[in-house]
Amino acid sequence: MRINGKKYTTIWYEAKTDSIKIINQTLLPHNIKIEKMSSLVDIIDAIKSMKVRGAPLIGCTGAFGVYLAARQFKEKTDLHKACKKLIESRPTAVNLEWAVNRVLNKLEGVDVNKLEETALSEAIEIANEDISFCKKIGEHGYNVFKEIKKNKQTLNILTHCNAGWLATVDWGTATAPIYYCNDNNINLHVWVDETRPRLQGAFLTSFELNNENIDNTIISDNTGGFLMQKNKVDVCITGADRVMKNGDVINKIGTYEKALAAYENHIPFYVAIPSSSIDWSKNVEDIEIEQRSSLELSCITGIANNKIQETYIYPQESKALNIAFDVTPSKFITGIITEHGVFNANEKSLGILENKLS
Amino acid sequence: MRINGKKYTTIWYEAKTDSIKIINQTLLPHNIKIEKMSSLVDIIDAIKSMKVRGAPLIGCTGAFGVYLAARQFKEKTDLHKACKKLIESRPTAVNLEWAVNRVLNKLEGVDVNKLEETALSEAIEIANEDISFCKKIGEHGYNVFKEIKKNKQTLNILTHCNAGWLATVDWGTATAPIYYCNDNNINLHVWVDETRPRLQGAFLTSFELNNENIDNTIISDNTGGFLMQKNKVDVCITGADRVMKNGDVINKIGTYEKALAAYENHIPFYVAIPSSSIDWSKNVEDIEIEQRSSLELSCITGIANNKIQETYIYPQESKALNIAFDVTPSKFITGIITEHGVFNANEKSLGILENKLS
Repeated sequence: MRINGKKYTTIWYEAKTDSIKIINQTLLPHNIKIEKMSSLVDIIDAIKSMKVRGAPLIGCTGAFGVYLAARQFKEKTDLHKACKKLIESRPTAVNLEWAVNRVLNKLEGVDVNKLEETALSEAIEIANEDISFCKKIGEHGYNVFKEIKKNKQTLNILTHCNAGWLATVDWGTATAPIYYCNDNNINLHVWVDETRPRLQGAFLTSFELNNENIDNTIISDNTGGFLMQKNKVDVCITGADRVMKNGDVINKIGTYEKALAAYENHIPFYVAIPSSSIDWSKNVEDIEIEQRSSLELSCITGIANNKIQETYIYPQESKALNIAFDVTPSKFITGIITEHGVFNANEKSLGILENKLS
Repeated sequence: MRINGKKYTTIWYEAKTDSIKIINQTLLPHNIKIEKMSSLVDIIDAIKSMKVRGAPLIGCTGAFGVYLAARQFKEKTDLHKACKKLIESRPTAVNLEWAVNRVLNKLEGVDVNKLEETALSEAIEIANEDISFCKKIGEHGYNVFKEIKKNKQTLNILTHCNAGWLATVDWGTATAPIYYCNDNNINLHVWVDETRPRLQGAFLTSFELNNENIDNTIISDNTGGFLMQKNKVDVCITGADRVMKNGDVINKIGTYEKALAAYENHIPFYVAIPSSSIDWSKNVEDIEIEQRSSLELSCITGIANNKIQETYIYPQESKALNIAFDVTPSKFITGIITEHGVFNANEKSLGILENKLS
């Protein structure tokens, strides 16, 4: 997708410098900075400091990390040790482990002189696959949205957090149907939950949509329910960190309340994910919900006096609790949009998808 | 209640300067500044810019506004014209209209030389009444909370926005039961919704509770539903800008979503108000929901580099919509706590209160 009219992906291999390039997302929307990753250390730092974020993008970044590690560590045991560190840079991210192991498996039995080029080509393949899966999600979502729009002038979509192209390599998950609709002349407007505490909706989703000239309005996270009552929302769509096999959805904190309000107001609520985000083995009770630093609530980055500054907003003495994710029970989810089509949020329907995949 | 150990009310008449004094609440919690109101213009500005806020306090401020107007306008038609402007400074606040009209009615037939002193004494009476009504709300709420606490170690209360003593003259409405419980050794902990966009929960409620040494934790507005799912909330309580005679509640944006989540999770949801906040005549459809400047969303006041600064957090090109209130249908409200006791949120039960009042 575009930033200031120029096409980007969130990560790419640059042959000229033989390095990996990323957009440093911690500086968005206030500053657009491309950074060069020349070693595994750079990659681990980028993941830990959230210069790259979003499950699919973290996975791809990890895959490119194996390439940079393979340049550095010629001994297999050294390479595996380095990749273990890479996986540990974000222990909760299923995609990271998956992508790193996929590249490592590809290297099994490969001639030592071919390790680097094999790792690079597999990482590029993972990135390209991510793009094509997201585009497929867009196509399936387009069919859903087209049906909901029918006789409406404008389709009003509400989204929470950022499951945009910035969270993937391109297209995004929740935003893919939005971009696909936009490319196919479906008139739409997006309500963007600002998504406290880290404001990914305002900082990233609205920024993305602005850059694609898609009409959007940021709202406080308190506002969605009111807009739904007033018939100002036709459909909700979010991404997910993890979808359980029974259709329960683990996603950014606040998704649950939005889904409740949609259910109460008879508004369809869709979750868009690549099928790799479905957890076929665990139960929802087994998943530890991440609690992050309370500084993410009390300290906000913005522009003050024409400079990017950190501002402390809470009373100094106050405690704060930062729960990062919540669980939306499947009964509040209308459908799960994947690269293989749209499924109901229940074990039976998702089972059909599982069979397709195996 | 106390700020830094010193007792305050939010508004008072200072004889020495023949003026009204208020705490400028737009600067809290970062700065504690007492301001002098010498004219109706000061009062209207204080209401519009939210130096004073909260339905009961706005009412009292309006009452003192009539006193200042009566000093300025000796002609009855001029005074009434001025008071109309005063009422229009916050169209949603039923208390403002009520208090202004109460003082104006008191002035009917009063000798022109006695207008000022009559207005002042009525305004002071309204303020004193507010204090005693809020304390009564505290007492009735205490009985409700004591029952909910029963076998629990700690009562976990969730509140939205600030219906604290800072929203009234003293005690608060939603906080009155909390302060009353605290005074009567009920062990409690308060979840404070930060309450975007203006952060009154973090800026005011947490600040109040800290100053009364009441254990509290600020959470993002996205978090309440999750905590309710996890049995971390025993009861919710908020104030209201206006309660309709059928029990529908107009309050700070986000109240509706919180009430939905409470209902879904079988958690009692109480609304605490003085009976003057009940609108006995209009229907909910007649009430215009205030839309405020989007700057309240995109510009946040906090501390940067040891100074109070305004920080701009959204992408410059982004639009934002700032709906200030929402409507919670009565079916989601467990009870309305007033100075006259606890009523069900329906026309029949509130009718009993109406009869009491007439």
